[in-house]
Amino acid sequence: MSVFSVDNQKNLMLFSGRAHPELAEQVAKELDIHVTPQTAQDFANGEIFVRFEESVRGCDAFVIQSHPFPLNNWLMEQLIMIDALKRGSAKRITAVLPFYPYARQDKKHRGREPISARLVADLLKTAGADRIITVDLHTDQIQGFFDGPVDHMRASPQLAGHVRQNYSLDKITVVSPDSGRVRVAEKWADMLGGTPLAFIHKTRDPLVPNQVKSNRVVGDVEGRTCILIDDMIDTGGTIAGAVRLLRDCGAGDVVIATTHGVLSDPAAERLANCGAKEVIVTNTLPIPEEKQFPQLTVLSIAPLLAQTIREVFENGSVTSLFDGSA
Amino acid sequence: MSVFSVDNQKNLMLFSGRAHPELAEQVAKELDIHVTPQTAQDFANGEIFVRFEESVRGCDAFVIQSHPFPLNNWLMEQLIMIDALKRGSAKRITAVLPFYPYARQDKKHRGREPISARLVADLLKTAGADRIITVDLHTDQIQGFFDGPVDHMRASPQLAGHVRQNYSLDKITVVSPDSGRVRVAEKWADMLGGTPLAFIHKTRDPLVPNQVKSNRVVGDVEGRTCILIDDMIDTGGTIAGAVRLLRDCGAGDVVIATTHGVLSDPAAERLANCGAKEVIVTNTLPIPEEKQFPQLTVLSIAPLLAQTIREVFENGSVTSLFDGSA
Amino acid sequence: MSVFSVDNQKNLMLFSGRAHPELAEQVAKELDIHVTPQTAQDFANGEIFVRFEESVRGCDAFVIQSHPFPLNNWLMEQLIMIDALKRGSAKRITAVLPFYPYARQDKKHRGREPISARLVADLLKTAGADRIITVDLHTDQIQGFFDGPVDHMRASPQLAGHVRQNYSLDKITVVSPDSGRVRVAEKWADMLGGTPLAFIHKTRDPLVPNQVKSNRVVGDVEGRTCILIDDMIDTGGTIAGAVRLLRDCGAGDVVIATTHGVLSDPAAERLANCGAKEVIVTNTLPIPEEKQFPQLTVLSIAPLLAQTIREVFENGSVTSLFDGSA
Amino acid sequence: MSVFSVDNQKNLMLFSGRAHPELAEQVAKELDIHVTPQTAQDFANGEIFVRFEESVRGCDAFVIQSHPFPLNNWLMEQLIMIDALKRGSAKRITAVLPFYPYARQDKKHRGREPISARLVADLLKTAGADRIITVDLHTDQIQGFFDGPVDHMRASPQLAGHVRQNYSLDKITVVSPDSGRVRVAEKWADMLGGTPLAFIHKTRDPLVPNQVKSNRVVGDVEGRTCILIDDMIDTGGTIAGAVRLLRDCGAGDVVIATTHGVLSDPAAERLANCGAKEVIVTNTLPIPEEKQFPQLTVLSIAPLLAQTIREVFENGSVTSLFDGSA
Amino acid sequence: MSVFSVDNQKNLMLFSGRAHPELAEQVAKELDIHVTPQTAQDFANGEIFVRFEESVRGCDAFVIQSHPFPLNNWLMEQLIMIDALKRGSAKRITAVLPFYPYARQDKKHRGREPISARLVADLLKTAGADRIITVDLHTDQIQGFFDGPVDHMRASPQLAGHVRQNYSLDKITVVSPDSGRVRVAEKWADMLGGTPLAFIHKTRDPLVPNQVKSNRVVGDVEGRTCILIDDMIDTGGTIAGAVRLLRDCGAGDVVIATTHGVLSDPAAERLANCGAKEVIVTNTLPIPEEKQFPQLTVLSIAPLLAQTIREVFENGSVTSLFDGSA
Amino acid sequence: MSVFSVDNQKNLMLFSGRAHPELAEQVAKELDIHVTPQTAQDFANGEIFVRFEESVRGCDAFVIQSHPFPLNNWLMEQLIMIDALKRGSAKRITAVLPFYPYARQDKKHRGREPISARLVADLLKTAGADRIITVDLHTDQIQGFFDGPVDHMRASPQLAGHVRQNYSLDKITVVSPDSGRVRVAEKWADMLGGTPLAFIHKTRDPLVPNQVKSNRVVGDVEGRTCILIDDMIDTGGTIAGAVRLLRDCGAGDVVIATTHGVLSDPAAERLANCGAKEVIVTNTLPIPEEKQFPQLTVLSIAPLLAQTIREVFENGSVTSLFDGSA
Repeated sequence: MSVFSVDNQKNLMLFSGRAHPELAEQVAKELDIHVTPQTAQDFANGEIFVRFEESVRGCDAFVIQSHPFPLNNWLMEQLIMIDALKRGSAKRITAVLPFYPYARQDKKHRGREPISARLVADLLKTAGADRIITVDLHTDQIQGFFDGPVDHMRASPQLAGHVRQNYSLDKITVVSPDSGRVRVAEKWADMLGGTPLAFIHKTRDPLVPNQVKSNRVVGDVEGRTCILIDDMIDTGGTIAGAVRLLRDCGAGDVVIATTHGVLSDPAAERLANCGAKEVIVTNTLPIPEEKQFPQLTVLSIAPLLAQTIREVFENGSVTSLFDGSA
Repeated sequence: MSVFSVDNQKNLMLFSGRAHPELAEQVAKELDIHVTPQTAQDFANGEIFVRFEESVRGCDAFVIQSHPFPLNNWLMEQLIMIDALKRGSAKRITAVLPFYPYARQDKKHRGREPISARLVADLLKTAGADRIITVDLHTDQIQGFFDGPVDHMRASPQLAGHVRQNYSLDKITVVSPDSGRVRVAEKWADMLGGTPLAFIHKTRDPLVPNQVKSNRVVGDVEGRTCILIDDMIDTGGTIAGAVRLLRDCGAGDVVIATTHGVLSDPAAERLANCGAKEVIVTNTLPIPEEKQFPQLTVLSIAPLLAQTIREVFENGSVTSLFDGSA
Repeated sequence: MSVFSVDNQKNLMLFSGRAHPELAEQVAKELDIHVTPQTAQDFANGEIFVRFEESVRGCDAFVIQSHPFPLNNWLMEQLIMIDALKRGSAKRITAVLPFYPYARQDKKHRGREPISARLVADLLKTAGADRIITVDLHTDQIQGFFDGPVDHMRASPQLAGHVRQNYSLDKITVVSPDSGRVRVAEKWADMLGGTPLAFIHKTRDPLVPNQVKSNRVVGDVEGRTCILIDDMIDTGGTIAGAVRLLRDCGAGDVVIATTHGVLSDPAAERLANCGAKEVIVTNTLPIPEEKQFPQLTVLSIAPLLAQTIREVFENGSVTSLFDGSA
Repeated sequence: MSVFSVDNQKNLMLFSGRAHPELAEQVAKELDIHVTPQTAQDFANGEIFVRFEESVRGCDAFVIQSHPFPLNNWLMEQLIMIDALKRGSAKRITAVLPFYPYARQDKKHRGREPISARLVADLLKTAGADRIITVDLHTDQIQGFFDGPVDHMRASPQLAGHVRQNYSLDKITVVSPDSGRVRVAEKWADMLGGTPLAFIHKTRDPLVPNQVKSNRVVGDVEGRTCILIDDMIDTGGTIAGAVRLLRDCGAGDVVIATTHGVLSDPAAERLANCGAKEVIVTNTLPIPEEKQFPQLTVLSIAPLLAQTIREVFENGSVTSLFDGSA
Repeated sequence: MSVFSVDNQKNLMLFSGRAHPELAEQVAKELDIHVTPQTAQDFANGEIFVRFEESVRGCDAFVIQSHPFPLNNWLMEQLIMIDALKRGSAKRITAVLPFYPYARQDKKHRGREPISARLVADLLKTAGADRIITVDLHTDQIQGFFDGPVDHMRASPQLAGHVRQNYSLDKITVVSPDSGRVRVAEKWADMLGGTPLAFIHKTRDPLVPNQVKSNRVVGDVEGRTCILIDDMIDTGGTIAGAVRLLRDCGAGDVVIATTHGVLSDPAAERLANCGAKEVIVTNTLPIPEEKQFPQLTVLSIAPLLAQTIREVFENGSVTSLFDGSA
Repeated sequence: MSVFSVDNQKNLMLFSGRAHPELAEQVAKELDIHVTPQTAQDFANGEIFVRFEESVRGCDAFVIQSHPFPLNNWLMEQLIMIDALKRGSAKRITAVLPFYPYARQDKKHRGREPISARLVADLLKTAGADRIITVDLHTDQIQGFFDGPVDHMRASPQLAGHVRQNYSLDKITVVSPDSGRVRVAEKWADMLGGTPLAFIHKTRDPLVPNQVKSNRVVGDVEGRTCILIDDMIDTGGTIAGAVRLLRDCGAGDVVIATTHGVLSDPAAERLANCGAKEVIVTNTLPIPEEKQFPQLTVLSIAPLLAQTIREVFENGSVTSLFDGSA
């Protein structure tokens, strides 16, 4: 006999970088498995070393890493983990990036710039990633930067669900903080049953390059509960300014809803004091205690990630999680 | 002596597909060279055959092809020309696509869709293209789909210049035909010296999926000269509807400005009768006589393409053509 | 527990482009499954859009597309379908091309030509095809153009079987229509039990380049039933001329046998009137009613394709379908 | 100043493997340069070591290697030389293979076979070859196996020139030794002014697989000077048998013309005694003294290779060397 | 129903080149399967032809080839076998190289040299190998030359086990034959329970480049049983000289332990007469009768290879075979 | 005329990351050009943005980046710069890494580890680097990790020159701090005219895994000036311990010579107090004031880098800088 046969089985294994271990633990709990134990350490000059404690041969590997500050460190850790999985004979490697790094650099704004979001996709591929799972990309086109399947999750149903439960829909106006997110705001307006829409228009002085002259609200916000939406809040300057402008224009409550709470200093202070009634984020990035403030609501993205991983592993339909729109 | 040396010279050669030969001729004239003669023919089943009449060995090749209907045919012709150049030892091959095909399919709108704009970039690369020159991509992110240099030209300075010469700036409002182009409209407003802004908001009926319930203008247009901007006009339905809505809302003159005049039937008829005072396009796509109508103004993109090709060939700065923004 | 396991199953899914849906339906029926439902539509400028109606995650996908006129359109549709499958996480993608496009451009006949048949192989690979199934390539070497497994089916056993059933073997001479197919004719002669062989020799005038001076039959055809073989008939000019020449040389019945009935105009008329007793083709390409004529016999290739797909899916031996010769 | 500029110069350097140094020396002499000195040695277990004695940085490298027995050794030597050039910063590397190895394995004759000719192309590419120059491929399609420019030289004008000078054209019939080379024979017939054509038809016994039952000449050879053509002669069995068959059929003088004189034992003896009047070959492969015999004529391929290398280096037209047909 | 499902099974198939069939047979016996029957033959000019006698579709293929003289031949045979498996639709291909060819050329010792060990890794990848299994690489870094999993087996536990059973540990000193293997000798010293260490220091005359002036033992060897270790013995000159030097320095018994017995002439004679008490090797390379001599002990590597193949196939842990160090 | 020609010129441009700008400035000064001005900034979450202030089209770009702590940040900055150069149409991109990051992870020390040094090579390639210039790799084999030319500089001639000028050669013994660098120590011994050699042997307790039991000097050091060499000093623990051990064994002066002064805390303190007479390093990494101490001598690597860049740019011989050994 020239052939020696055994039954084939698929094995899911979950791996976690060190950027946001709580999220990986939540996902593991939802899936009723453990995160694979590993040794991970930093050398004094910043080099990272990783080694898995269990055999990964033939597994369907999901490598969760979040990307808060210091982002380059966590990206490199994820690349190194993927390399170790590739060389350790994992069968398929899915990089799970709840927050996709360098998503804002998704095009050359001017000449001689990098397109770092494409670079990140290529680095992941080179290290050995076969697929990507991510949440709320800065622009949808980033899916096309990766040469392979990208499962692009949406946090908006969860965020909008929270709004629906806590605010009266007929008073709501959805507001985009700038001209580039009006389309997203329009989708939110549809999700909330067809609310009005507004956005903030920045005019620039033609004589002074790159300087905003004034901010103007286009659309009607007076007396409305404004749901100010964005994909991420970094230092919070723009969004806090938007809240103030809306209040100046006579808006009622202003609620901020965003997927990625980067919350770099001094975001917490700015948001706490800007006059917003509530700031809703998810935990795609870790929100340590020092970044929290009274108006902050954090929703967990873990159930969505776990469900997606399960569908990917079992060849179910991820699209069905979003009524066909993912 | 083991080494045999000669001086090195760079030779620019221009090639043209059969989709829009007039444009290639205009570019050649600007550069004061001829389009390289070639044999190109169609077999009865649609297969295309191409052969160049002059040696292309070592040349810096620029392959201009426009992509009107039947678009797949012209794309395939360009790929075949690039393959022939690669196998004929061209030194460097630049694909010049005044209108980038499949640009609208730049992301998965829903699950199980292709990202055809990325596919096109990969097909060009596979055939042998080293670089791309293109004009006004549907979204800027498409630059990142190609693994190599993309020179992304802007027609808006030329279009806006025409507006500036023919209309009174202080009466202008720039209007985006939908929520996805407000950012572009904002850039136009800046180019025209800081005009007001408006856009058309489509509300959808939550009970009837994918159906637009009503169109509403957000922003003030009454009595204003509305410059309605878009990257392309295909069948013209949306844009003609937008003109009518603006007129219903009391707008003054409505002027349409767009880079790519796809003008599929019945665009010419619709645009002629929609009430627009002028429709300004460029000739990135051929505009044959049967597509023309009294209000139509066609600006030539050839000088811009020629200047770009020259800068690329001579290692000048393309960015400087756009004051640093390309 | 760090590992979560499930049994592994393989799922075959069949996809069909729009060029020849009847063939895909026949294949599906043989396999007792349905063609996966999809949305496919053409935009006004020729761009194609495709979306699958069912989850394709983890499936073993077979994408059937035939390539009649307009061939570039159908090739692009197949590439787009493959891209959508890749991004939708199909596990393995097999492109099924009953008629391989651009097979005649399998070499540079002269300098500065493309090798379009290699280009097609690379485009399929780039889009995401892992394997190819095809029928009767113009030359066998095209198998080597694809970097992966190519299952190359032969229609000749089926065609020869039809000849054997309907004509008296001892009167047959197999005839090649030109000097390039004599080897294939020899294989036919063997399949028919060792018949004589002939071919048509085109002499060229050394003073008039590229012009055929005369056609001469090499080999004995007087009074014989001539089986004139070829891989494809396009406009039918050469083959109809060959029939006439054979009749002029005293041949008895002339029967044409060919795998691919491209039958571009005016093939049907030419073949109907050339004096051939029967023209045998398969349906690797659609043969619409207007291309049919009394002497035409169409054999279905569907059983062979279905059997091949099944063997590929179940890891059986395709070679055994051809007594070791495929 | 941020830029430091120098004039650019191109430097041709010639490298030679150890399989056929005389040919490389002849080419070098034609080009009036020296072969670059190198150290090349074999370790006891067969490993090859190569080191160049001069800097190769930035040069346009041409690596000539012939492929006689032991062929795998010489192929590996060429790959190692190319690797050393790539790592030594050569600017462009052209592999010159006067006889392309494994050209006969250009397709799967039956299932589960390799396509070694494609493999060779890929190995050359992987090692670092940018381009290939070769002579008279077994089939033209092999050009398409390499992903890059292939300059495919023809020795037939030279061989046919020799025939034209030494034999009376009006008595010549060109003969193909089997059914697969009739097309090539037809081209020879055209080159010799439109001579008649014949070929040898092998019939197989349907009851005994893979066994040739008889050889029959198709076409008229009685009293004719037969020019028996082939791309290569290996052990000479087939071609010597063909000479005898032709003589048995009443042929006059029989002259063999072939590009590649592999001449493995016992070819020299067979050819000397088969009754051929002359055997014309080129020196694409070394013809050592022990392989020579009275009827053998060896033409040098060096001038053609040298002229091609010069045109490639100087970006001239190689096609023009063959009146447009290469 | 659009999906047709079957259970998935994994099938191991074993293939063997012709360099060392006994080893493959031993491995097959350990795994209780047969080596897959194949046709393999050499053409007169050295070209190799391979064809498998059974379907390989979907199998997990392990291709064993050893690399003795003539090494390039066996390497090419293995590449061709891998190509045939790839084109025959094997699911996964593991190249098993008990002795990795060109391992000594793992860096540029001087400028303008190849890195042939990297080239070999790339050739295997290009042909279609997904993974590599090998034994005792010349340097561990070679693992990193292959872009994929490398299972790197160690023969030292087996070799050291033999030493432990036959020699008194407290008299042993481990000796490195040169300065480059001291680290390996240190590992041996640890495996043997912490023995002393020595090495042979070659001093070079600064006035005569590349010439060794004298050999000196660094470390204490007087009266000790010296275990002289190396990864391979080729012609045996260095190692035999080392034995003599150790004896001159007053060493007791000298035992040579090495993984790869290349044993090129005149190694057998040298080793037999150098004064070594025992020479221990494995059969990673064939040791034909004419290479054997009285002091030679050959241990079989087959059990280790078989166990590794089984673990790789069944997704077990190879690392566990070596207590975590592989 | 179809061709438009200009003379070709090569332009060198120098770029510098922000890790060690002084070194880049020194190199620029040696080359008599300026570092190309750029904008580089960090976003609050650690993302890096880079833009060049001058056109880079067609230039021969050299991108210098050193890799001190935080190493991953500087590596990512270099990748982003290379991406921006690729997309900005630089003609050739050379990554200059005076200290190659992750060089110590050049193999799997145990199973399921990454080979991060290979990963770094692949990341550089993916970003767009054509070539690498680096200094004193941890192991020479890392050259083979990059698929392209690597110019591997040696600092040892410079370091040894300093030793030769300051210490009496006849009293010197070269010492390797562990068993893995004895070969390098041997090369030093040759460079210093044939000095004696010693190394420090670490014995491990077989009962306590991974723990060093004792350190022993192998070789004679009593009364000798010990030159303790290594490629890098990180936290300095091992090397400081080696100094003490040598002093305990009766050594005279101990001088440390190393290329890369990583000098992570508490290296400065340890080295200052370990009893070494002098510690010689180069500035491949920045040595800020707080890392300096009285016994430290810093030699500049800038002249060597500048000379190498010039030779690479002008296609001179880099090998000649090292008498053939690079």
